[in-house]
Amino acid sequence: MSRFLAPAYHNLVPYTPGEQLNDRKYIKLNTNESPFPPAPGVCRVIDEGRMRSLNLYSDPALTALTGSLAESFGVSPKQVFCGNGSDDVLAFAIMAFCGKGGTLACPDISYSFYPVYADLFGVKLTQIPLAEDFTIRVSDYVGIGKNIVIANPNAPTGLSLSVKEVETIVASNPEHLVIIDEAYVDFSNDTCVSLLSRYDNLMVVQTFSKSRSLAGLRVGFALASEAIVEDLNKIKFSFNPYNINTLSITAASQAMREQAYYDECVAQIVAQREKTKKRLADLGFVLTDSKTNFVFASHPEKKAEMLYKALKERGVLVRHFNAPRIKDYLRITIGSEEQMEGFFAELTRIL
Amino acid sequence: MSRFLAPAYHNLVPYTPGEQLNDRKYIKLNTNESPFPPAPGVCRVIDEGRMRSLNLYSDPALTALTGSLAESFGVSPKQVFCGNGSDDVLAFAIMAFCGKGGTLACPDISYSFYPVYADLFGVKLTQIPLAEDFTIRVSDYVGIGKNIVIANPNAPTGLSLSVKEVETIVASNPEHLVIIDEAYVDFSNDTCVSLLSRYDNLMVVQTFSKSRSLAGLRVGFALASEAIVEDLNKIKFSFNPYNINTLSITAASQAMREQAYYDECVAQIVAQREKTKKRLADLGFVLTDSKTNFVFASHPEKKAEMLYKALKERGVLVRHFNAPRIKDYLRITIGSEEQMEGFFAELTRIL
Repeated sequence: MSRFLAPAYHNLVPYTPGEQLNDRKYIKLNTNESPFPPAPGVCRVIDEGRMRSLNLYSDPALTALTGSLAESFGVSPKQVFCGNGSDDVLAFAIMAFCGKGGTLACPDISYSFYPVYADLFGVKLTQIPLAEDFTIRVSDYVGIGKNIVIANPNAPTGLSLSVKEVETIVASNPEHLVIIDEAYVDFSNDTCVSLLSRYDNLMVVQTFSKSRSLAGLRVGFALASEAIVEDLNKIKFSFNPYNINTLSITAASQAMREQAYYDECVAQIVAQREKTKKRLADLGFVLTDSKTNFVFASHPEKKAEMLYKALKERGVLVRHFNAPRIKDYLRITIGSEEQMEGFFAELTRIL
Repeated sequence: MSRFLAPAYHNLVPYTPGEQLNDRKYIKLNTNESPFPPAPGVCRVIDEGRMRSLNLYSDPALTALTGSLAESFGVSPKQVFCGNGSDDVLAFAIMAFCGKGGTLACPDISYSFYPVYADLFGVKLTQIPLAEDFTIRVSDYVGIGKNIVIANPNAPTGLSLSVKEVETIVASNPEHLVIIDEAYVDFSNDTCVSLLSRYDNLMVVQTFSKSRSLAGLRVGFALASEAIVEDLNKIKFSFNPYNINTLSITAASQAMREQAYYDECVAQIVAQREKTKKRLADLGFVLTDSKTNFVFASHPEKKAEMLYKALKERGVLVRHFNAPRIKDYLRITIGSEEQMEGFFAELTRIL
């Protein structure tokens, strides 16, 4: 630490991303990336001509991208806010709406970035325990009178709330913002976008990093009321106006025109997920009913940390969270057929 | 404004980027972009294979990019912090080191984003008037006992301090951070990087947007002590760990290997700048001795706002700041030979 760091950040503990190791070739099942490349049209859209135009700034208003998203989701472009990954969107949102001294409630087991944002921005965080079976108890959030962020489906549990359940939470907290982080929604079909027309205290956040195979491109977005998007833009234009570069705008806009390809990728991942659940259960694992592109699994006899380390030694990366209640679980991303065969071969040997 | 926006931001006035208009074809001399495309090697480095790898996250540690920069500047990779444009770097720096209630001093006429950051992060800002001739009076900053940000060369004046003058400021404020924003330094040769080995309270910020013809790629960086970079990474990993995407990492790293091409572009821009100064002086304009890729010019008889509007009507965009002391000036980016001919043709007609 330098002697110049502001006191507010002295005890800040940053988010720990999943390992990105290059020391050998790994079967990488630890950061919930898609095993499929982006759509062929996306891979071709950045040509030498596009690269030659990079001397000019990107469009800070992101007109092409917000337009594509608005059309696809049936909302106004003024209801779309785009960021440099959905982490960027969540950071701006929590900064804008929870602010210093504001409130935020989230499940105790969820995306581990939420408490980091709260700490960074001086937000009073309330972490609400999941039920024993890792489900979110809707009643815990009804009329809570705080801003709320819920990952739906939740990570790392993989469990999802229905649109109806989310609506109960949103409707009962009209004076507070409810952020539904739908990073994994395309694997479950439970998007809350349809609620936007009735609730102005709802923000739905999605990403291009999972179902759209574009984690390395860094594009995420929020759909909300025009007033909320206006506020987010106020923060963005006070922080980093040109927050998405020309290549990302171009490729992400193209991705929105390639839905058939991505639907097929999702179908394959969902099929592989169900197969993986069954095989893990056959090996004695206990699993949640994941609606995402990962599974969350615990073995009654084998320590998860041991399995994580043994798999890593054998060239398979999965994610282990050394945290209360979930330290006996592994989060395993659904990879390609070949990757999953490699994973099961090593896992069976270890067991 | 939504009813959810935190009170701290109700009166926030965001930064206004230069106009990015698409209603007709313009000679665009308003945002200090390079008129040259990126180096040929940069334009070829993003191929279909690279695009196909975008399903995987970018490297949050930015090892390739910080390595290239460290080698090029003769510092340790641990002294390099990279951001999604230098605006991102400045935002993180002012957040980390000035914080809420901290101090920041800057010239009253400078990059108009500095006061916005101060407002966003609740920093006590001191704006120090430039001298009558728009120069920065070094004595105003000696032992000031506040954090300092100075654009060197300064914008929109184009004037620069010598390394010796910057050193006087840095040496006299050992307990405060001095940020030298060198966005335009490659057009003047006065970089303060050499001071880093002697002063741990100095941060030098540069960008790929100007001399490296990559404004649309969004990459900027800071060089500072290892402790300062560690602090910046703490904030980054609490805000947006994957802040630069794979395409930007790849293209910017390649740009660092194309110095000969960029040196030639800079030489042409500097030659064009000197020619432009002479032609404007011949037309009766008063100019500062700009060391950047733009000129700052005022006509004794013609209102700058009128000239700006008349040029825009004729398809030439320049920048006019409707602000005290500089409202009689135009900031005109140095474009290509052809663009400058077009600019002078229209300007002569207007005059």
